[in-house]
Amino acid sequence: MISAAIIAALEAIVGKRGIRDADALRPIHPGFDSRNLDAGLMVIPKSTAEVAGVLCLCNEHGIAVVPQGGRTGLAGGATSTAGEIILSLANLNRIETISPDAQVAIVESGVTLQALQEAAEHHGLSSGIDIAARGSATIGGMISTNAGGMEAFRLGVMRQRVLGLEVVLPDGSVMSDMAQVTKSNEGYDLKQLFIGAEGTLGIVTRAVLKLAPKDEFTATALVACPSVAAAVTLFGRLQRSRSIRVLRAEFMERSYFRLAAETLGPPALAAFTDASAYLILESEAPDQHTAQTSLEEALAAAVEDELILDAIIAQSESDRQLIWKVREESDTATRAYPAGYWFDISVPLQALQAYLDRFSAEITALGDGTRGFVFGHLGDGNLHICVASDGTMPDKNAAKAIVYVGLKEMGGSFSAEHGIGLDKKAELEALVDPVKLSVMRTIKKALDPNGIMNPEKIIG
Amino acid sequence: MISAAIIAALEAIVGKRGIRDADALRPIHPGFDSRNLDAGLMVIPKSTAEVAGVLCLCNEHGIAVVPQGGRTGLAGGATSTAGEIILSLANLNRIETISPDAQVAIVESGVTLQALQEAAEHHGLSSGIDIAARGSATIGGMISTNAGGMEAFRLGVMRQRVLGLEVVLPDGSVMSDMAQVTKSNEGYDLKQLFIGAEGTLGIVTRAVLKLAPKDEFTATALVACPSVAAAVTLFGRLQRSRSIRVLRAEFMERSYFRLAAETLGPPALAAFTDASAYLILESEAPDQHTAQTSLEEALAAAVEDELILDAIIAQSESDRQLIWKVREESDTATRAYPAGYWFDISVPLQALQAYLDRFSAEITALGDGTRGFVFGHLGDGNLHICVASDGTMPDKNAAKAIVYVGLKEMGGSFSAEHGIGLDKKAELEALVDPVKLSVMRTIKKALDPNGIMNPEKIIG
Repeated sequence: MISAAIIAALEAIVGKRGIRDADALRPIHPGFDSRNLDAGLMVIPKSTAEVAGVLCLCNEHGIAVVPQGGRTGLAGGATSTAGEIILSLANLNRIETISPDAQVAIVESGVTLQALQEAAEHHGLSSGIDIAARGSATIGGMISTNAGGMEAFRLGVMRQRVLGLEVVLPDGSVMSDMAQVTKSNEGYDLKQLFIGAEGTLGIVTRAVLKLAPKDEFTATALVACPSVAAAVTLFGRLQRSRSIRVLRAEFMERSYFRLAAETLGPPALAAFTDASAYLILESEAPDQHTAQTSLEEALAAAVEDELILDAIIAQSESDRQLIWKVREESDTATRAYPAGYWFDISVPLQALQAYLDRFSAEITALGDGTRGFVFGHLGDGNLHICVASDGTMPDKNAAKAIVYVGLKEMGGSFSAEHGIGLDKKAELEALVDPVKLSVMRTIKKALDPNGIMNPEKIIG
Repeated sequence: MISAAIIAALEAIVGKRGIRDADALRPIHPGFDSRNLDAGLMVIPKSTAEVAGVLCLCNEHGIAVVPQGGRTGLAGGATSTAGEIILSLANLNRIETISPDAQVAIVESGVTLQALQEAAEHHGLSSGIDIAARGSATIGGMISTNAGGMEAFRLGVMRQRVLGLEVVLPDGSVMSDMAQVTKSNEGYDLKQLFIGAEGTLGIVTRAVLKLAPKDEFTATALVACPSVAAAVTLFGRLQRSRSIRVLRAEFMERSYFRLAAETLGPPALAAFTDASAYLILESEAPDQHTAQTSLEEALAAAVEDELILDAIIAQSESDRQLIWKVREESDTATRAYPAGYWFDISVPLQALQAYLDRFSAEITALGDGTRGFVFGHLGDGNLHICVASDGTMPDKNAAKAIVYVGLKEMGGSFSAEHGIGLDKKAELEALVDPVKLSVMRTIKKALDPNGIMNPEKIIG
């Protein structure tokens, strides 16, 4: 549906090798969402100038553009259809500079998180953010979805990592605000609009990111807690402690842990103490001995205070990997229950126990073996929930109602870290303040009057 | 210039006691900027609904509204003129809730920073941000200017403290996004637009703020460093250290320190070792012994590595206050040189030594005793600079050129933490990407089509 003349014009901008038609796309994996490559035409610019050229052309001709990074998004934010152009940032993949003194990196948006992490580690620094899809997920995609992940309780989500941004606007003009400093108030902070906009307002091409100090050694433990409230109390205590630096505190509720440990784990994990709540705690320290002993001491104190029932402390990297497998291979729930409904919510910590008690009771009451598998990032109260059934799946709206009820009133969120994309538009319309929705439409119309940027996503 | 009918309509919204005319304003201090109360008419609503009512009325009649918090702004962001209405948030001053588990506070926008700090301390928590004007500055004003201050290198600027916001838009509609969680991606993060907008897009009425753990005890030292680069190296080392938790690292360059110590300090401070750079370091710990010894040990190591020449460690609260006085009473420079030009910039840490070397040489070369007094927040590279002269002041544009040259290219900022207001509009026009300026105008027009919100400020 894209004319030969347009393709020729695109070729003039990005070169023959910068364009892939449907045949050339066939060997490429569509990523998490099978709809991602449906447009059948991908343009792969190598520079900001080429991105600008492509958008200028598309804006003039009213051609829709779907930006793609690592295609690891979980909310349908990068799906494409015939007549649209996929714009891949894969070739904007240079790490330009890393300044160890200022703890700052300047990168192009197609750099993967893992590439940045490895480059930062050379300087004893961390990206300050980590997600399981690190090998494929790109910085631009993480900015556009305001990614969160496992370390957000320490250093915030992606928005808090971004000091500066370069964005190509829908008309092809380039907005540059590449500050390398935390304090910069030069009028409206427009870069914030593009963070989390899922490519609907423009295309992120470069970014300045704040890095964080990193210790070389870690210690890891799997912990069984008598209750969710005990896990929350333990987390709060560890966070305030001077003797341990907690990097991660991943939460698994009983049903999920049992399913994952029995499916993925060695017998020792599958037979681990039965409990309402499990945590994977990972701490860091400048040497292995300190890492290990500080974690051991913290856990011993927690046992004494009855905040934990039992713990397994990893004694080797392979122990560590076995523990993490139970949490990171969460698609074990999808494989066991392919028809399950997935949710991605935030619950304020003080309300977590009550929320999960109510949720479990109401989900079970739907009958026919319906139940929830819940895990997530404890420090943020960020829960990933799979509602599944051993029999007939319940009505999806009934499940939604149980997951979402009261969330807004308690200050939580129906959309924590995966974004809205196509898949959560109904929730957005139903649960967000209508005044905010109306301003969102005003902004979209003002910045992308021809509606070419990632149409239909979020509020399209 | 506001008609009696309008005043009657305002009275119907906020009551007689919610309105002050020129006579009633006379006893009120205008705050930092003598122009602040020039409108001669102040409206003081007590609730979001009253703010909404006032904006709705003013929008209908095209009456300009200048929102005011503590009137401590330094860039002319709250000045008013006849025919405008001052909208004071002073009576929206309730701290609604503090949740210790989640480390979250919900406040109205007229709450002062100090009131929040005191309430948070009851729970062993900190506001995570501190500025010298804490007694008067309001949370709404700090949000609207995206305040920074002394602790921003640890936990970020005000933008990073805000989890949720309620804003009254120019047409009187109320946009509510009062999330209490770090992870919330419910479409465009519109609250970010109002953070740092200096009241030109709407009025912040309530906020959810992230608090931070706080230790009870602090230790404070005044340190003389052989060079700016040594101070930067020392700061980086302290930040990575596990044995000390640095809260503040305030920088004073030689001229400023000498002026302030000789004017304000006791003989011991005035006679303190001559050096290129001084730091006030403050660290915290759960007990006084640890606070004191960890700071002593860190400084001893730094002496050995020739990163510091000399240090005074406060042995009492009165020692501490004497040290801080030298830094916090920075208007000592204004009193000594009332004609001085003030700047508020950020310089990336790796460029700080070179920047200051060049700056000093070029300012001195202007002749007639012209020199710079420089102090600020080391961790952010945030410098407050007073260019003054013992003779005739140099041309202001010559001073500006010396301060601003190269700043953008090195990733710094001409406007770090005080905002644009009226006073830095020329810089904004000259130094910000024209594409960004153009999008700023688009946003202003889209959200405030009648231009009633704080006219002339930033880009008006």
